[in-house]
Amino acid sequence: MKLFFGKIHQETAILNEEESHHFAKVLRGNEGDLVHVTDGKGNLAEVEITSISKKAVEGKVIDLKTSFEQKNYYLHVAIAPTKTMERLEFFLEKATEIGIDEITFLQTFHSERKNIKIERIEKIVQSATKQSLKAYLPKVNDLTKFNEFIKQDFEGFTKCIAHCEADIERTPLRTVLENNPQKILIMIGPEGDFSRDEIFAAEDHNFTEISLGHQRFRTETAALQAVFAVDWGLK
Amino acid sequence: MKLFFGKIHQETAILNEEESHHFAKVLRGNEGDLVHVTDGKGNLAEVEITSISKKAVEGKVIDLKTSFEQKNYYLHVAIAPTKTMERLEFFLEKATEIGIDEITFLQTFHSERKNIKIERIEKIVQSATKQSLKAYLPKVNDLTKFNEFIKQDFEGFTKCIAHCEADIERTPLRTVLENNPQKILIMIGPEGDFSRDEIFAAEDHNFTEISLGHQRFRTETAALQAVFAVDWGLK
Repeated sequence: MKLFFGKIHQETAILNEEESHHFAKVLRGNEGDLVHVTDGKGNLAEVEITSISKKAVEGKVIDLKTSFEQKNYYLHVAIAPTKTMERLEFFLEKATEIGIDEITFLQTFHSERKNIKIERIEKIVQSATKQSLKAYLPKVNDLTKFNEFIKQDFEGFTKCIAHCEADIERTPLRTVLENNPQKILIMIGPEGDFSRDEIFAAEDHNFTEISLGHQRFRTETAALQAVFAVDWGLK
Repeated sequence: MKLFFGKIHQETAILNEEESHHFAKVLRGNEGDLVHVTDGKGNLAEVEITSISKKAVEGKVIDLKTSFEQKNYYLHVAIAPTKTMERLEFFLEKATEIGIDEITFLQTFHSERKNIKIERIEKIVQSATKQSLKAYLPKVNDLTKFNEFIKQDFEGFTKCIAHCEADIERTPLRTVLENNPQKILIMIGPEGDFSRDEIFAAEDHNFTEISLGHQRFRTETAALQAVFAVDWGLK
């Protein structure tokens, strides 16, 4: 059964405009069809389509699950976009599939890419959410300057910066996970790593410096490993 | 310093023909240049180029590391090729980067793809090995029929089949890893999973049925998770 984004009320559901178009025009769906609808906030409804118009496809809620497959942790990954968008997109797809709640793109000293197309990224994340039948849509934040990002208030979060400077003491991510953080924020640097100034600035804002292992990974591999490790360690 | 594949003798090294061409014609390298050379079997040499001809670039070994960054486990993943080659290729790149020793492509009952271009796959694995400066080149095996594969003798291996049939008892991969297997073989099924006949046939050949977690992942995501988990659990 296909999954669509939409609004869910007590007994009815309305697909979003774009999703309505997709259902009616692309998939040529019909009244009586059964679909899944999610609001991206944990609600997942089984819906029987009752009316199809140009802008809105509506249906009757047959079954409603709340907090559908809710994880027991909240993961926010802040990542410097990779030079090749393809690699970043693959990361986004996999991270959504495995479990990520929030993504921020970081503009860092060594960043090679200074811009991202946020609409395209939102599309990828939406599509991965639908593909893997999830009821929580990860939040996507636009490109943010490193120095502004670290100043934000991340109340209740275990804040981490992953870097490769071997002469600066780092805590293994494994050790961080043993404390069972409920909310975890991990910053992943660009190909050239975070600058030392950035590392020290993060330290000043109470970020824990972490290592992901003995290997130097590509940016998107490091980010993927963090997502896998958090899922593996906290679930 | 760039890494090339070649033969390493006591005091000299010769780049493979294709690599020689790449060094001389594409990168326009010169005598006196310093490069890394690996035989893909654990040897990593620092080499000063001493002669450049059309077919062979040779050099003097300045430093030689044997068993360079050897892992403490051997991982063989047997995977049904995905419909989209792009996804499989991304998996291969990431798996090589994280750590995999052998890859076999499985022809299964539900396989959508019946052929693969093995030369292209070898290129991807070689390229990922060079990119991540590794001295061990993963072995790539061609498409093999599932029923023939499971009959092979995997002496000393902990053999696993990952599947999603919830009503068949499975051991979590986590538990398998707690026994610290030195050599581990994990079979990952196609999008439609292994057939029940395949699962029972594997059972008959002493494969342990495993689960990778509570989620149903895409083929390449499941394979990636297995690679990450083995690396995380055994290192």
